[in-house]
Amino acid sequence: MPKFFVKEENIFEDRVMIVGDDARHIGRSLRMKIGDEITLCCNNTDYSCRIASISDTAVRADILSKNKTQAEPDISLVLFQAVPKSDKLDFIVQKASELGAVKVVPVITRRCVSRPDKKVFEKKQRRLQKIAEEAAKQSGRGIIPEVGGIIDIKEYYDMLKGFDLNLLCYEGGGKRLCDIDLLKSAKSISLFVGSEGGFDENEAEEAFKRGATAVTLGDRILRCETAPLCAISIIMNITGNI
Amino acid sequence: MPKFFVKEENIFEDRVMIVGDDARHIGRSLRMKIGDEITLCCNNTDYSCRIASISDTAVRADILSKNKTQAEPDISLVLFQAVPKSDKLDFIVQKASELGAVKVVPVITRRCVSRPDKKVFEKKQRRLQKIAEEAAKQSGRGIIPEVGGIIDIKEYYDMLKGFDLNLLCYEGGGKRLCDIDLLKSAKSISLFVGSEGGFDENEAEEAFKRGATAVTLGDRILRCETAPLCAISIIMNITGNI
Repeated sequence: MPKFFVKEENIFEDRVMIVGDDARHIGRSLRMKIGDEITLCCNNTDYSCRIASISDTAVRADILSKNKTQAEPDISLVLFQAVPKSDKLDFIVQKASELGAVKVVPVITRRCVSRPDKKVFEKKQRRLQKIAEEAAKQSGRGIIPEVGGIIDIKEYYDMLKGFDLNLLCYEGGGKRLCDIDLLKSAKSISLFVGSEGGFDENEAEEAFKRGATAVTLGDRILRCETAPLCAISIIMNITGNI
Repeated sequence: MPKFFVKEENIFEDRVMIVGDDARHIGRSLRMKIGDEITLCCNNTDYSCRIASISDTAVRADILSKNKTQAEPDISLVLFQAVPKSDKLDFIVQKASELGAVKVVPVITRRCVSRPDKKVFEKKQRRLQKIAEEAAKQSGRGIIPEVGGIIDIKEYYDMLKGFDLNLLCYEGGGKRLCDIDLLKSAKSISLFVGSEGGFDENEAEEAFKRGATAVTLGDRILRCETAPLCAISIIMNITGNI
């Protein structure tokens, strides 16, 4: 069944209003009709609805039932990703959204070859946000993962305190994910993955000093876009979310 | 250090000969010189070598030491992948090779939209084999994963007997990978992932009858190219290979 995310202000006692591009999309592209069923989602709640009226600007859907979104993980995993080359970030945002991350934050590290200006990145950020929304709809998420603005590594260091557990995938070696006991109980987790060149030793050491745990993904050298998907898959498995 | 795969016939007591495209690539593209070190690999053995002579047709490298390839998993995982649309198979072969699969076999199932002819697929197979080799070099594998010719699902059924454990990712529900006890001891594993439309119920049931285990990858609906990477990552983690 098609799924769309709606804002809280558009949910009423017995009905949901869908406005903007989604309304047009439902009527024109999907060719949905009055009486068709649709899932609308807001803040981790799925509303099973039946379409009551359709126009190019608004769709009214009557609520049949509401339930907590089944597919949303019970951990809050934020991926900090050192900015990779070309369009690899598109791919990472899409896959991280499917696999259950709540946020992807691009970080400029010393070894990043691609170093977009924060201001210039804003346009790309909007595009990445759309990719996250599409992936969230398709995979049945309960929220749309957020794509953050670009930050430098100092800002990452300052954010570490906000998480129960901070993981950094380090080619210099570390613990296997299944050997990190705290992973089974942590509710908020940050995961930091390097760009093509990995992490500068000093940058990684600074993160470890501030409490981050070095993680190894084994002896094979994974590409910078493969590593986050591999790590998120394993984390979601260990925490019972895959 | 650059890594190349060589054939057994080109390994001698104290030296390795590199011939063909790789020889040209070493001298021209990588601009390597006499005295440079290089890793040459054959059948899960890494030879650390020093280049002794270079021409466009042959490179001679003297063996400094030889070791079992560290990065090769100790399980033999074959991915059976129902043929997806567009160029997703390129992506799947690349990532499965990095993550440690020994073979990728494309399978035609009832719900495949893309249904290439076996003969027509041969050209694509050669291209996919090159992708596997590149990924194997880059990730430090001990073998080049094989890309099989396209088969139909009946041929898949006949191959199930050859594995210690057969897994099929099923959207109709199944066991979580970490709950499959045999996974910890199985040495040869087959993993079957559907195309965009998933598996036809009868097709899946036939596999289960023949001993395949239904596997769930959780409540989120993963795209057909995300599911194999997620499953391989988790299998490699559970078996101690990531």
